[in-house]
Amino acid sequence: MTTENSTLTRRELLRMIGATAGGALMYQAMNSLGFAGESSFAPVSLQGAPRGASVLVLGAGIAGMVAAYELRAAGYKVQILEYNHRAGGRNWSIRGGDRYTELGGFKQECRFDEGLYVNPGPWRLPYHHYGILHYCKRLGVPLEAFVQVNYNAYVHSTKAFGGKPQRYRPLKADYHGHVCELLAKAVRTSKLEDAVTKEDQEKLLFSLRAIGALDQNFAYTKNNGSSNRRGFEKDPGGGLTAVPIPSEPMGLKDVLDSGLWMALAVGDFYEMQTTMFQPVGGMGRIGEAFGKELGALIRYNAKVIEIKQDASGVTATYEDTTRPGSKLSARADWCVNTIPLSILSQIPMNVGQAMAEAISAVPYSAAIKIGLQFKRRFWEEDENIYGGITYTDLPISNIAYPSSDYFSKGKGVLLGAYMWGLAAMDFTAMTPQQRVQKCVEMGTRIHPQYAREFDNGVAMAWHRSPFTMGCAGAWTDELRDKHYDNLCQIDGRIVLAGEHASYIPAWQEGAVTSALDAIGRLHQRAVSAGAKA
Amino acid sequence: MTTENSTLTRRELLRMIGATAGGALMYQAMNSLGFAGESSFAPVSLQGAPRGASVLVLGAGIAGMVAAYELRAAGYKVQILEYNHRAGGRNWSIRGGDRYTELGGFKQECRFDEGLYVNPGPWRLPYHHYGILHYCKRLGVPLEAFVQVNYNAYVHSTKAFGGKPQRYRPLKADYHGHVCELLAKAVRTSKLEDAVTKEDQEKLLFSLRAIGALDQNFAYTKNNGSSNRRGFEKDPGGGLTAVPIPSEPMGLKDVLDSGLWMALAVGDFYEMQTTMFQPVGGMGRIGEAFGKELGALIRYNAKVIEIKQDASGVTATYEDTTRPGSKLSARADWCVNTIPLSILSQIPMNVGQAMAEAISAVPYSAAIKIGLQFKRRFWEEDENIYGGITYTDLPISNIAYPSSDYFSKGKGVLLGAYMWGLAAMDFTAMTPQQRVQKCVEMGTRIHPQYAREFDNGVAMAWHRSPFTMGCAGAWTDELRDKHYDNLCQIDGRIVLAGEHASYIPAWQEGAVTSALDAIGRLHQRAVSAGAKA
Repeated sequence: MTTENSTLTRRELLRMIGATAGGALMYQAMNSLGFAGESSFAPVSLQGAPRGASVLVLGAGIAGMVAAYELRAAGYKVQILEYNHRAGGRNWSIRGGDRYTELGGFKQECRFDEGLYVNPGPWRLPYHHYGILHYCKRLGVPLEAFVQVNYNAYVHSTKAFGGKPQRYRPLKADYHGHVCELLAKAVRTSKLEDAVTKEDQEKLLFSLRAIGALDQNFAYTKNNGSSNRRGFEKDPGGGLTAVPIPSEPMGLKDVLDSGLWMALAVGDFYEMQTTMFQPVGGMGRIGEAFGKELGALIRYNAKVIEIKQDASGVTATYEDTTRPGSKLSARADWCVNTIPLSILSQIPMNVGQAMAEAISAVPYSAAIKIGLQFKRRFWEEDENIYGGITYTDLPISNIAYPSSDYFSKGKGVLLGAYMWGLAAMDFTAMTPQQRVQKCVEMGTRIHPQYAREFDNGVAMAWHRSPFTMGCAGAWTDELRDKHYDNLCQIDGRIVLAGEHASYIPAWQEGAVTSALDAIGRLHQRAVSAGAKA
Repeated sequence: MTTENSTLTRRELLRMIGATAGGALMYQAMNSLGFAGESSFAPVSLQGAPRGASVLVLGAGIAGMVAAYELRAAGYKVQILEYNHRAGGRNWSIRGGDRYTELGGFKQECRFDEGLYVNPGPWRLPYHHYGILHYCKRLGVPLEAFVQVNYNAYVHSTKAFGGKPQRYRPLKADYHGHVCELLAKAVRTSKLEDAVTKEDQEKLLFSLRAIGALDQNFAYTKNNGSSNRRGFEKDPGGGLTAVPIPSEPMGLKDVLDSGLWMALAVGDFYEMQTTMFQPVGGMGRIGEAFGKELGALIRYNAKVIEIKQDASGVTATYEDTTRPGSKLSARADWCVNTIPLSILSQIPMNVGQAMAEAISAVPYSAAIKIGLQFKRRFWEEDENIYGGITYTDLPISNIAYPSSDYFSKGKGVLLGAYMWGLAAMDFTAMTPQQRVQKCVEMGTRIHPQYAREFDNGVAMAWHRSPFTMGCAGAWTDELRDKHYDNLCQIDGRIVLAGEHASYIPAWQEGAVTSALDAIGRLHQRAVSAGAKA
């Protein structure tokens, strides 16, 4: 979350990097959708639903299914209407044989091999997203480590180092080495006597030497110490050809000019720190497990076209999309509405003006993810990259390598692009085939193997998703001040939930914590109403 | 590897941390056995062994089995003598039911549950240890990510913060925040005009703000930006209880005084960087796979008691330890001898004085690892620690949490201690039961749950290992100058191999690269001798 007094503002950063290496997209790549990645989750145990009380849940995404799961446990009669033919919403893994038609009619059929997948929506779980992790455990969804930072992956700028990708490892070592050297110099030449006590100065110097891999003169130079961070010219080995040769560090100027330092803090962000997770077999395993758990409670292919509340309940009118033009309805005492605001703003619903304005006020981010299948895992075989992410200032922004099946033979799928903003809008305008082709072209500048090894791909443009029309609610501080509470307040018998009703936007944890907060309040109201009746 | 001109020397560091938080052990914990962790491996393909040529390999550890595997492929007749009743040597996982008798006669039987294990020897594989990874792939040993750095694990000093363990996350955030703030201050007050050009100063300032999470005034303060690194007082959430509360950073003085900054660089060390690996099911899977692959080539329970070479070959005399007092012999044209120097120095062998002196010159490190089984995975359930390592200045040095079966129910095994030097010698003197008990007592200061949840444990003291008598060759620069080449040179028909004959001591990669270098030279000599004959 950006606030007045926090770290550098987006505007400042953009101004600054305009002058360097076109790193705006890279900074987005590391930062966007990830400002806040934390949770205030505590397990919920609702009890004592009024006898016969019922709740209609709109949307079988994570928020809707968490709500349904807990409300059912509390004794409510629950039903869910879901527009899609599957459970999960943005929690989704695309696998071979899956078909998807986007707004505008473009159709894709995924041709990945058995066992391979891409997560077009969420793809990683921080260790402190206690809510979603709680439900993974509850539902028996096995998790494995997701590698976010890989020292052997690349950072790439078209405007630095002749466009040649650099390994993350030497960039990080050299930036920190030079920073520690400079600070040591300031301390040793008594430039910081006001700021640091004499006693602390000595401790600080020793720490800088250890952290920055400085030599005995507090300089960051070519030797085995610095090479033991940045890598060697020739690695040590065994027998008579074993002696290592150290490598030459880059100068501070080269590091700063490249703009590539912007990728260095990623792994320190609260939501990107080790240990991160992913479900074994794809993020979609969570939605699938919830769907199986809730079974017949979910009515699929149910497109809500009107929501109406009155003094005694809420009625949703919907079309069964397998029977176009059909008109059915579902009714319950209360409604948990998790339909994304981008869609909900187009559905007639009689709520008060405050909530209605809030629903209309929040724009949705554009985002695109492209999954590419290759004939072999060349990133592992040729380049020793296992999991993690390459950052680039090309519009594709990210290349993410699979954090599973390491060292396996045969084909592999990587995330060929993860983009936002203008780049995403550009790609949204293309056909899926064009997006994939463009993605392969761009990626070839980082991995020349793309040209020969590319097999097939799928491209998910969230602005063309019929069930979300965007990636996530794009709150600003100003919008939050004006509308957030109005969005979250219960309106009569309706409460909204979803990542859009949280301070953890675009993360599943936002959906979970929002749902739990919403049903907690709704339950109180239901109990109170039940007692009055 | 430490060299004159590299980072701060061990002596300096020890002197310095004597004054702070007793962090010597912590620095050892992060650094020891891991100075050099790199590889100059290239796949070997020997061809054209002289007709009928034979090689006797001594030791079925990683070096011996790599040698045997490649020599057999080249056409040599190969046999291996192994003292132990299993393949792998220090590559070893102890599982329930395993029995082990150490020097002095202490017996242990592991009582871990099915599927749980501890690796008493090597336990992790850096991504650039190409040699050992190559053989994992060749032998079909599946690998999974090993988590080295965990931002939610602890750093602990008995002399700082009242002995209360601190999470790695805020320590790291606060150290870097303060360092960036100080350097920004020096730059902004024109204290570094000689060192950094005007143009670079501006870029540097922006980078410091981004890397250090500084505010708009380049200060490291309490706000959402710094909390998005160090963690929040109250995490953000969903609905109407969502607003986060930032946390208060520690002062620089507290961070420096604690000495805990010493753990911060661990993940930047070449051999500790992401992505690291471990074999699924335990490191011992590699040794087991090699053993299966080589099958009847290996003679187990064969204790070598004399090695004699003459003009035409090498004869090893050995005892079949299942028949005490027996005396058998094996002979071949050539010998690859991988017996650890600690053992080899006690076995009569007719080599030249230079090699003999080298064999006797290298001391072996003491090391102890203790595996503890607990009734439940409380570190995950109570403390949200998934994999990674807690560092402490207590003699146990490390507590390492399993990088597998995350979120699983039931019992779990963690590494309760990994110690070297004096602490290891102290524990070596105890019985295995006393070591385990002491380890539990100490660990309770970090995890109070130990007291109630402890189930059983095993303690491996390498100085009491009958087959290694130590952990690894403890080279110094001086010893290397004098003896290393003499150790590695072929002496007549005998060549030595193993981690002790490498610049990657105590890592399996040293064994692999040493073996490949040794057999390459031996092969040349054999071919040359074959041609002459």
